[in-house]
Amino acid sequence: MTTAARPSAWDNDSRQRFLDAAVALFVRHSFAGTSLQMVADELGVTKAAVYYHFRTRDQLLVAVMEPMLTRLREVIRAAEQQRTPRARAESMLAGYAALVAASRSTSSVLTTDPSVIRVLRHHPEWSEVIARPPVLLAGPDPGPLGGVHATTVLTGLAGAASGAPADLDDDTLATALLHTGRRILGLRAPRRHSA
Amino acid sequence: MTTAARPSAWDNDSRQRFLDAAVALFVRHSFAGTSLQMVADELGVTKAAVYYHFRTRDQLLVAVMEPMLTRLREVIRAAEQQRTPRARAESMLAGYAALVAASRSTSSVLTTDPSVIRVLRHHPEWSEVIARPPVLLAGPDPGPLGGVHATTVLTGLAGAASGAPADLDDDTLATALLHTGRRILGLRAPRRHSA
Repeated sequence: MTTAARPSAWDNDSRQRFLDAAVALFVRHSFAGTSLQMVADELGVTKAAVYYHFRTRDQLLVAVMEPMLTRLREVIRAAEQQRTPRARAESMLAGYAALVAASRSTSSVLTTDPSVIRVLRHHPEWSEVIARPPVLLAGPDPGPLGGVHATTVLTGLAGAASGAPADLDDDTLATALLHTGRRILGLRAPRRHSA
Repeated sequence: MTTAARPSAWDNDSRQRFLDAAVALFVRHSFAGTSLQMVADELGVTKAAVYYHFRTRDQLLVAVMEPMLTRLREVIRAAEQQRTPRARAESMLAGYAALVAASRSTSSVLTTDPSVIRVLRHHPEWSEVIARPPVLLAGPDPGPLGGVHATTVLTGLAGAASGAPADLDDDTLATALLHTGRRILGLRAPRRHSA
């Protein structure tokens, strides 16, 4: 982990404040445009206070993205367990739509910032989480157009979630994104819900 | 314009080399993560050589985006002349699909980099070009979900174009993006082609 040994409750609070400030700065300036100094300035603390938790900008990014990437890994695992390419695509899509609707700022950082994908693609723990979703979404149509549709879903749904009106609640947004994603991938809604 | 007075043919050549290098760097590092020094280093020239053409990073960005924004403005004008909201959305969509398929790198810079949109939204000449496409695409469905669909089209099609296989030709890609966009917006293909 990125914190010093035996973090106190105070440490965890201050760590979370840094993460919240970092997301806001990433959304405004992109990851590449945000320095540790800017995070310090945003909170009115010294750069040393940021360094106490995060030694590098990449560490800060991974810490910011970790909750979403962890959930995305669970979505991928659930999808991999489905029996057909269509069921895997549907499961991946439904999980992704719910995830981006629930974490709008973070998902826009993930999918719209080229420097973020570059860091995560080379991170041993997260490279698979970046690589699998397009493969699962394109499964029913593995030609070049399947890839085009998969990328449209991944970037388009995240862009739509981050630009959605704040008063549109997460469930309504997730349902709208799911329907949109099905249209893009040419998937019909499943007849009945199964576990 | 951003060039010095009476640019020579040599000046124009060297200016274009800077623009090409800048697009490549923006795609790799995002606009916010690219400095004029990095553009100079990429071409093995001094920073003064870059300054000769571009005084600021924002000037460099506007120069990079200008050809695409000019074409986007033409697409918007053609769409505005259609008589119904559906015809305006269809015209905007078809023009946008062709545009992002033909300029894959630049379109990904335009729609996926938050710092780029921020610069252009405040630029007197280009703010309308940024503001109109979502309005035209959402026209047939002006509720909150219309906005969600419009943003899905704008970010998703650009993301798909920039991630498309290099051997997928522009026309095939544009057609695929047009069909995908129609699915997202719930538009049927027009019965016949009109001017």
